[in-house]
Amino acid sequence: MKVLLLAAGKSERMQPIPDKNFLMFLGKPLIVHQIESLIKAGFDDFIVIGGSHNLDKLKELEFKNINYQIIEQKNLDEGMAGAIIACEEVVGNDLVCIVSSNDIVDEKAYELIVNTVNDENVDSVIVGKKVKKYFPGGYLKIDSEGFITSVIEKPGEGNEPSNLVNIVIHCHKNPKKLIEELKKISSNKDDRYEVALDSLIKGGLKIKAVEFDGYWQPIKFPWHVFDVMKYFFKNMESTISKDAQIADTAVIKGNVIIKEGVRIFDHATINGPCYIGKNVVVANNSLVRDSMINEGCVIGYSTEIARSSIGKNVWTHANYIGDSIISDNCSFGSGTVTGNLRLDEKNISVNIKGEKISSETNKFGLITGENIRCGINTSFMPGVKIGSNCVIGAGLVIPYDIEENKFVKGNVKLEIRENKAKLEKDARNKMRGKI
Amino acid sequence: MKVLLLAAGKSERMQPIPDKNFLMFLGKPLIVHQIESLIKAGFDDFIVIGGSHNLDKLKELEFKNINYQIIEQKNLDEGMAGAIIACEEVVGNDLVCIVSSNDIVDEKAYELIVNTVNDENVDSVIVGKKVKKYFPGGYLKIDSEGFITSVIEKPGEGNEPSNLVNIVIHCHKNPKKLIEELKKISSNKDDRYEVALDSLIKGGLKIKAVEFDGYWQPIKFPWHVFDVMKYFFKNMESTISKDAQIADTAVIKGNVIIKEGVRIFDHATINGPCYIGKNVVVANNSLVRDSMINEGCVIGYSTEIARSSIGKNVWTHANYIGDSIISDNCSFGSGTVTGNLRLDEKNISVNIKGEKISSETNKFGLITGENIRCGINTSFMPGVKIGSNCVIGAGLVIPYDIEENKFVKGNVKLEIRENKAKLEKDARNKMRGKI
Amino acid sequence: MKVLLLAAGKSERMQPIPDKNFLMFLGKPLIVHQIESLIKAGFDDFIVIGGSHNLDKLKELEFKNINYQIIEQKNLDEGMAGAIIACEEVVGNDLVCIVSSNDIVDEKAYELIVNTVNDENVDSVIVGKKVKKYFPGGYLKIDSEGFITSVIEKPGEGNEPSNLVNIVIHCHKNPKKLIEELKKISSNKDDRYEVALDSLIKGGLKIKAVEFDGYWQPIKFPWHVFDVMKYFFKNMESTISKDAQIADTAVIKGNVIIKEGVRIFDHATINGPCYIGKNVVVANNSLVRDSMINEGCVIGYSTEIARSSIGKNVWTHANYIGDSIISDNCSFGSGTVTGNLRLDEKNISVNIKGEKISSETNKFGLITGENIRCGINTSFMPGVKIGSNCVIGAGLVIPYDIEENKFVKGNVKLEIRENKAKLEKDARNKMRGKI
Repeated sequence: MKVLLLAAGKSERMQPIPDKNFLMFLGKPLIVHQIESLIKAGFDDFIVIGGSHNLDKLKELEFKNINYQIIEQKNLDEGMAGAIIACEEVVGNDLVCIVSSNDIVDEKAYELIVNTVNDENVDSVIVGKKVKKYFPGGYLKIDSEGFITSVIEKPGEGNEPSNLVNIVIHCHKNPKKLIEELKKISSNKDDRYEVALDSLIKGGLKIKAVEFDGYWQPIKFPWHVFDVMKYFFKNMESTISKDAQIADTAVIKGNVIIKEGVRIFDHATINGPCYIGKNVVVANNSLVRDSMINEGCVIGYSTEIARSSIGKNVWTHANYIGDSIISDNCSFGSGTVTGNLRLDEKNISVNIKGEKISSETNKFGLITGENIRCGINTSFMPGVKIGSNCVIGAGLVIPYDIEENKFVKGNVKLEIRENKAKLEKDARNKMRGKI
Repeated sequence: MKVLLLAAGKSERMQPIPDKNFLMFLGKPLIVHQIESLIKAGFDDFIVIGGSHNLDKLKELEFKNINYQIIEQKNLDEGMAGAIIACEEVVGNDLVCIVSSNDIVDEKAYELIVNTVNDENVDSVIVGKKVKKYFPGGYLKIDSEGFITSVIEKPGEGNEPSNLVNIVIHCHKNPKKLIEELKKISSNKDDRYEVALDSLIKGGLKIKAVEFDGYWQPIKFPWHVFDVMKYFFKNMESTISKDAQIADTAVIKGNVIIKEGVRIFDHATINGPCYIGKNVVVANNSLVRDSMINEGCVIGYSTEIARSSIGKNVWTHANYIGDSIISDNCSFGSGTVTGNLRLDEKNISVNIKGEKISSETNKFGLITGENIRCGINTSFMPGVKIGSNCVIGAGLVIPYDIEENKFVKGNVKLEIRENKAKLEKDARNKMRGKI
Repeated sequence: MKVLLLAAGKSERMQPIPDKNFLMFLGKPLIVHQIESLIKAGFDDFIVIGGSHNLDKLKELEFKNINYQIIEQKNLDEGMAGAIIACEEVVGNDLVCIVSSNDIVDEKAYELIVNTVNDENVDSVIVGKKVKKYFPGGYLKIDSEGFITSVIEKPGEGNEPSNLVNIVIHCHKNPKKLIEELKKISSNKDDRYEVALDSLIKGGLKIKAVEFDGYWQPIKFPWHVFDVMKYFFKNMESTISKDAQIADTAVIKGNVIIKEGVRIFDHATINGPCYIGKNVVVANNSLVRDSMINEGCVIGYSTEIARSSIGKNVWTHANYIGDSIISDNCSFGSGTVTGNLRLDEKNISVNIKGEKISSETNKFGLITGENIRCGINTSFMPGVKIGSNCVIGAGLVIPYDIEENKFVKGNVKLEIRENKAKLEKDARNKMRGKI
């Protein structure tokens, strides 16, 4: 039983965060978590479909005791259908399980599908997530025996054919037939895979829906990173490396992973749940809470990191970074702050592909790409995105998104006059009452 | 023996601080402190004269075992005389003690007047505060037997008729007669009460002056709040609620009241004298000293509050708030600072009703009304006043007062160019000496 | 044996740092360290040549059991030659040792010269510092017996006549003859002393070079202060005054001198090597590391001082001061930061007498003169110099040097509009989940 793991998506809605497959959770890329979950559910043969943007990184991953094969999807515009067709020569006649790398689910979803697919009367199986309120996705229409009669995209609230939303965990006993059907449909079509399913159902394919009631969170928009972070925190086992150096006056509270080589200095606090990666320094008087700090970071003196995901080798210094997603190799000068609450306290919107989309929360900070350098005493407004390789000057207010590779400075001219104030040399001592 | 407590003043010189009767000291409104002091001195029958702006709040107050009645003064322009006349129908023929709610005195002043008024030869009693240096108020001119011959307003330094300043703690055995006299004088007159007294003295009224040598502080200008705060601190008994949660690494020093539900986090310090109200959070690494923090406040990470009076439900975050008066329901973004020292270190002046008035101190910060939202990294200049319901943007320097209901932002345009600096991904590791 | 200590230099390349002779190291002016080193090596008769700018301060110094005489050099443009000629009437016929006050050397250099000068065959001795790589100074050309045949200024890399650089520790048995020779040469010449030596050598003067392999560091540019600070730290003996008050929660680590009257407050950290002078306050949650803090300073709440030299009576408050040299009597408002790293992370250049000169390091902060007042939330760019008696406003970015006696402010006009946002009084409690 093969897994086709769909990992070719360009993560455009996540920009400037690079490829979401490589977002780190608890020190591992998301895609590794996905594969490990599938392995636990019994899968041991993986075809991962990537694009030119992430093929190299996918190839670098290593797993033991499984088959792990990378296939390139050339034309990423062809979406899920294109990804499956790209596997034509490697799928063979065995059962395949198509899984999206962006949907984080409880492992039980994979176990459910394994159990159901064994039924002789079933040709395919689709996992349906039981929802309590309307979700803007595809709904499964099912007959009395639990077989799917159609998949209805975004039916609108009140028109749902069931309470089951289509999650991309689909098993097909005859993948060749699916691929043949896909190839019949024009490659311009966005819903090519759904159209093919429909046509196969009409042709007699028996697709069983399995009801799934566990955790499910797609990573579609940047703020979903926080949801998934919380999920990983919930299941995290607290471990502090013996090799970590923790000052006597530092305080560690709650559920934490602290890796080898970590140094935590005097009067710093880690308020779990937190993940502190290899060789991270948390300097004096800093506070890290509800956050992931990836390896090599230096959290400088008097910095607060709250509810944030911090990439590798990020340097901070007397900053507040709250509800933010910072990619690898960024640095922030002393006194720079991420605003994370609008002054009118309304929900914070983010520009996603030219459209303002609400994050549905009133606490949201900064999103950055990789390799950013930010000066001292700068202020980022809530929900702002900074592209990779930007340089942001000192003392600025950044109220909107900055595209990658930009250099940003202010234009305040100083007024310089003769100083007419009499500055007394002894003023300081006078104030201390020593004169 | 009735108290006429004059509480109708509009506190114009205190703006944007709302009604000074409801300024909180040690968790109680000032007017409650006043009434409790009078109760201790033996009074149990109170007529409180309010205005339309504070009638409701006055009515909400509750006291046990006393008569507590609210009278509205319709025309506040008629001042003290108007207030007394407003009580015409409720005073009766009993002795009344007229007390200003704005003069904070040691309880002994009330006891003194109670003792003196018992003398049969006396019709009225006025408390005279013994002063050592000139004070710009009314001075008592007295004869050899200690009876007042006139009250001389602001005589000028060197021309004082005595060393006794008129404090509004006045007992009259025949209030009806006083009211009749007041009604004879034109209501346009500012000094109507004083003119009436003068006329009564000429008509044979025997007003005894009692010399008072204890604490007296009128709250006339905002900075008087600090004087009164110090007075309450001096007499405060240290108590820490058993219900308060204080982290092991937090430090509590000096004389403090810490109320129930308070949480003090790691590496925070409370340096008394301090009052920390119900449910206040003092977060990690913060410092509160010589300050009152009213209930519901969140003093966020790495904030210093020094010598300040902080209203209810105020939220701070990595701020410095020094020598400031912050009213209820305000919030300050991370990195925002109240300047509290001029760069030339001269005394700080404040705009009071269109006039610059010196606070007579070189340490004075911010004065705010209620319900203000301030962004991150903003700088308030010393002695600035911000009206209620203002929104103050991020990264600003606020050099002058802002009227209520304003939205303030800066106008710095960013210069955005292509970034030509080569940013090395490995720069951070190089700096750590790891490459 | 007399020392002629050359201390008249105007320290122009060090500006705005005042006279480098009085730069403090471990609580003593540099020139006192120099004289004490010479005393240890056996010298007990000092002629210190000063200029009008520092004569008074030189005269104030006191030493026990030595002759200590101050001579004024009137025309400072005449450099080293002028300084020596100024001593004509006081040198007598005894051996003199000419020493520059700006060259910090291991005491062994002085011992070496004392030992060598006893040789009967030698007229003069010059210390030559053995160098491993090219240094832009004067090189000693020597013959097979170790006698100097000439001094070659800046020969260029690869053309060095030896590996010995001329340090101004020069002994002459016949100072009168040297002075006669100097007076023959035009006073306009920059290299008058070197020309005189050359001429004396040609006339048969036997100058022995002594090879010196120990520590040598001239203070020529401001960043040399850091090098010399490190040298003093290396040789420093850790001592904490019994009279210092150190809070129980404060942390002292590494090699430190903490003088009498010092107070270190809760949750502060001193990470040695550090020198903390008399009566210094290090307030709550501050961090001082690898720095010298001279007497009378107040390091306010939540300040970090890193790798810096801080003059007397400097007040900080929630600042970051890194890799900086701050002269006496300066103050910095809360939130003000010294940038100490370029955003492109290149080496930092400093304007020295109109020329950009690289500090050869990518970590360099602020250099100030004396008696500066800086407002809150201001940002200094790396390598900037601020002249004495300047006032720097709040919320500014200071990207270039400011001459002395200037008043600097920004020119951001505020935009003030009616506030249309509905600010809910209960918002804070809602956020805390209390409503």
